[in-house]
Amino acid sequence: MRLTQFSDFALRILMYAAMREGRLITIEETAALYDISRAHLMKVTNQLTRHGFLRSVRGRSGGLMLARAPAQIGLGDVIRATEPDFAMVECSSPDGRCLLTPRCRLKGIVGEALAAFLAVFDRHSLADLILRPEDFGLAPAA
Amino acid sequence: MRLTQFSDFALRILMYAAMREGRLITIEETAALYDISRAHLMKVTNQLTRHGFLRSVRGRSGGLMLARAPAQIGLGDVIRATEPDFAMVECSSPDGRCLLTPRCRLKGIVGEALAAFLAVFDRHSLADLILRPEDFGLAPAA
Repeated sequence: MRLTQFSDFALRILMYAAMREGRLITIEETAALYDISRAHLMKVTNQLTRHGFLRSVRGRSGGLMLARAPAQIGLGDVIRATEPDFAMVECSSPDGRCLLTPRCRLKGIVGEALAAFLAVFDRHSLADLILRPEDFGLAPAA
Repeated sequence: MRLTQFSDFALRILMYAAMREGRLITIEETAALYDISRAHLMKVTNQLTRHGFLRSVRGRSGGLMLARAPAQIGLGDVIRATEPDFAMVECSSPDGRCLLTPRCRLKGIVGEALAAFLAVFDRHSLADLILRPEDFGLAPAA
């Protein structure tokens, strides 16, 4: 069982933006920081912008910043916005074709487990993940 | 986020064996029932046998049966035996190379969420998933 790399990157991009709060971050510096391809990173930032976690500032000295305070960015909401699905078992999908689906109790147990998983993320916000510049290998804040 | 198809099949094979308790099931009938390839099914049953959930009876009229009573087969134990890993994020893996790992609190939150997920499965056993022959599209038990 894994979260997608997409969600992993999303959380790390938000952590970097949170550390830089009040300043714009760029795709280039974030890609270099995490050693992620620029193209992949842009897909993630686009999704984060679309869901109102990041705000894009256009122009020559443009970049990205958090669209809300870190405490207003729930980690459960981020994951729900970045995971393509939570179709844990065949019967979770609308096109699932397991013959047991109508009577099976597994779907309910899986749903309960998934809710417990997300509830933990819902108890945390980006504010719980704030690090210092040194943790990113950068010079300490002045 | 998904469980592997391997775990999904494992649970369904055990459900079928539980319904047939006291009789041997065969790879052939189980593959046909769920419309799964015989080769893939054998990988799953081998893993379930290796972990003591199924018992293999050799010979011409051989087959597979539950190695323990359904109530003694915890669903959390099954998933732990069938999922290749629970490396939810980069830093979950021993070879993860995220530069934030030493100070990051995300790993702890992910670990807590995963524990909550597995705890739900641990509260249930195969006995909670027993169905009737009709639910498998088979003739009712005499």
